[in-house]
Amino acid sequence: MAIFGPKYNQVGVSLPGVAGKVDSPAFDAIGVEHVDALVRGCAVLGAGGGGDAYMFKIMAELALSETGPVPLVSLDDLPDDGIILPLAMVGAPMVFAEKILSGFEGLTLKAAIEDALGREAVAVMAPEIGGGNGVLPLAWAARLGLPYTDADGMGRAYPTIPMTTMHLAGLPVSPAVIVDARDNVLRFDTCDNFWAERLVRGSTTQMGAMTSSVLYPMTAADARRSTVIGSVSKALRVGSLLVYGTEGVSRAVDELDAVVLSVGRVVDIERRIEYGWVRGSLTVEGSGDFRGRLLHIEIQNENLVALEDGKVMASVPDIITVLETESGVVISTDRLRYGQRITVIGFAADPIWRTPAGLAVGGPRAMGYDFDFVPIEEIHAHA
Amino acid sequence: MAIFGPKYNQVGVSLPGVAGKVDSPAFDAIGVEHVDALVRGCAVLGAGGGGDAYMFKIMAELALSETGPVPLVSLDDLPDDGIILPLAMVGAPMVFAEKILSGFEGLTLKAAIEDALGREAVAVMAPEIGGGNGVLPLAWAARLGLPYTDADGMGRAYPTIPMTTMHLAGLPVSPAVIVDARDNVLRFDTCDNFWAERLVRGSTTQMGAMTSSVLYPMTAADARRSTVIGSVSKALRVGSLLVYGTEGVSRAVDELDAVVLSVGRVVDIERRIEYGWVRGSLTVEGSGDFRGRLLHIEIQNENLVALEDGKVMASVPDIITVLETESGVVISTDRLRYGQRITVIGFAADPIWRTPAGLAVGGPRAMGYDFDFVPIEEIHAHA
Repeated sequence: MAIFGPKYNQVGVSLPGVAGKVDSPAFDAIGVEHVDALVRGCAVLGAGGGGDAYMFKIMAELALSETGPVPLVSLDDLPDDGIILPLAMVGAPMVFAEKILSGFEGLTLKAAIEDALGREAVAVMAPEIGGGNGVLPLAWAARLGLPYTDADGMGRAYPTIPMTTMHLAGLPVSPAVIVDARDNVLRFDTCDNFWAERLVRGSTTQMGAMTSSVLYPMTAADARRSTVIGSVSKALRVGSLLVYGTEGVSRAVDELDAVVLSVGRVVDIERRIEYGWVRGSLTVEGSGDFRGRLLHIEIQNENLVALEDGKVMASVPDIITVLETESGVVISTDRLRYGQRITVIGFAADPIWRTPAGLAVGGPRAMGYDFDFVPIEEIHAHA
Repeated sequence: MAIFGPKYNQVGVSLPGVAGKVDSPAFDAIGVEHVDALVRGCAVLGAGGGGDAYMFKIMAELALSETGPVPLVSLDDLPDDGIILPLAMVGAPMVFAEKILSGFEGLTLKAAIEDALGREAVAVMAPEIGGGNGVLPLAWAARLGLPYTDADGMGRAYPTIPMTTMHLAGLPVSPAVIVDARDNVLRFDTCDNFWAERLVRGSTTQMGAMTSSVLYPMTAADARRSTVIGSVSKALRVGSLLVYGTEGVSRAVDELDAVVLSVGRVVDIERRIEYGWVRGSLTVEGSGDFRGRLLHIEIQNENLVALEDGKVMASVPDIITVLETESGVVISTDRLRYGQRITVIGFAADPIWRTPAGLAVGGPRAMGYDFDFVPIEEIHAHA
């Protein structure tokens, strides 16, 4: 698997060398010095989506430099009935990079949802650890003076609101609130989570294909049975391995037990903003060991499916991530360009997504594809 | 003007013969026996829009037969700080006739807006007296046990939310709430009234082109300076004159000092549901005194402009209403069909709409037409 040479020579941000998953945070707090690792780790887990993290990285660094470190808390450390605020951007990642946030959207969201619930929040959570949506809530947490929760609702990034572990656990998206830069504040109490998607997406499209949101407000007790535990620690760990250069890619591949699906050059990219999402496809012409092979990737905010000669090489819910080969920097779907020299990796999603219930919501058929999911390690068992 | 014979032989519903406008209600309460006159009067004031009243008529009759009469109150009878609920349908009138309401939507709307304002409502108002939207709030008022206010926010019907006298007076649409039959409840706190239109319309389109709404919640003190006073009394008065048959049309024409724009047959009707509105156009081939003449009417929920040989015969904000010639029944824009024998009348809007501020919001240019408003009595001064 290690095609990039030596591995595990950990440099960059100093993190404990945690080998497996963790049930409690690897640290007590996230300071400005950890943001870079968090950004890179979230990008790898993001399957190309969740928004390009560049703006959010700057926002988080600015916030933390002003407020000091944000405590990273385990769900076990929060009171059973403490309200957790899952904060995220909704919309098309291409827009996130163009419309700059104030960084204080969390204050409006918190006030509106506390008004709806009649109770105060005790912590912020990323409902989507992947991409910029794993980083931005940290900036909001800093501004709110609330801790960041070491968990998320996907363990990756996904394009629609019901594609969360909270939904699988039967929790409602409502009451939900979205806000925009004009101070429009919309609150949704919907009949189910699919209507939440439809209505939040529709309004977000009206509001410029980008809103800040609180979705699935819940108690810590509910969060313990409905989230992917340790997501932030995992992102920090992976991000700390992903040092600049091919070296970093190799380390991340090993850490994630990932499959390298292609090393080559972008020869075709088609991308459009369609109803609040980025949609399109990508073709990679292989080089080196992959010479003479074409990998085709289909996109809806995230990289959904990788195909070669019509054969599925990886698909949702497993995670397909594109990195720039030379630098090891993850390229989100909104940043893909013709001619980029990239490495495409794929790795297993959180096991919850491979259950029948998980596949019904986040598997290939849920995305409109007419094939059954096969775990990436089975597809590539011959390798 | 009276082309239909004898006039002012008042029959039908028994109403005081009020000749001019009233500043206080002509009665103390509206009972089931008054609904028919209210429906017909609102239809005439509706310019073809505000929704076909048939379903709403049945709902109002059912509600009043169960609850007894609803008090009709003057704004002067309400406490200065009493909250008034302007309740209405938003969406495409064609849909209102197909999706049947429960009649209890007002309870959800009232609860949500009282939660937003932290205060209880004292009365219901029709923000739009024209068409079904002048009738439905009466049914809701009955179910809520609240009085109905003798005022509205248009004096007619109009297709967009900022086209109200409340908007002209500087009152906000927000906080606004919309609900649908699935129990989706959306609350809007928007940066201005145009964004309220955009976001409420967008969500309504998602929710099936029809929602029940509370818009512009306000105190009685604010309502006194921002509404068309006496609208319900006027609708009742006009409706009581509009007895079945050509006789009724003649009486209404006289009462309203209306111009008969055409008597003839519908020879072309083009209509579609477009983004939460009914849009289209109508062509009337004249007969009798109008033989050899074609009248063309353009529609956006309401009849906006009447043209003959390219010349404007009447336009917003003045009110253009289509009645079935034989019966005197108003035909709303969603009920127009090829071959109907109709009489088209036009009459003056409330004077507020003829001011520069009123025309800027509700005049022909606000509707996208490239001509200045001329009052209907000036256009037809030669007649």
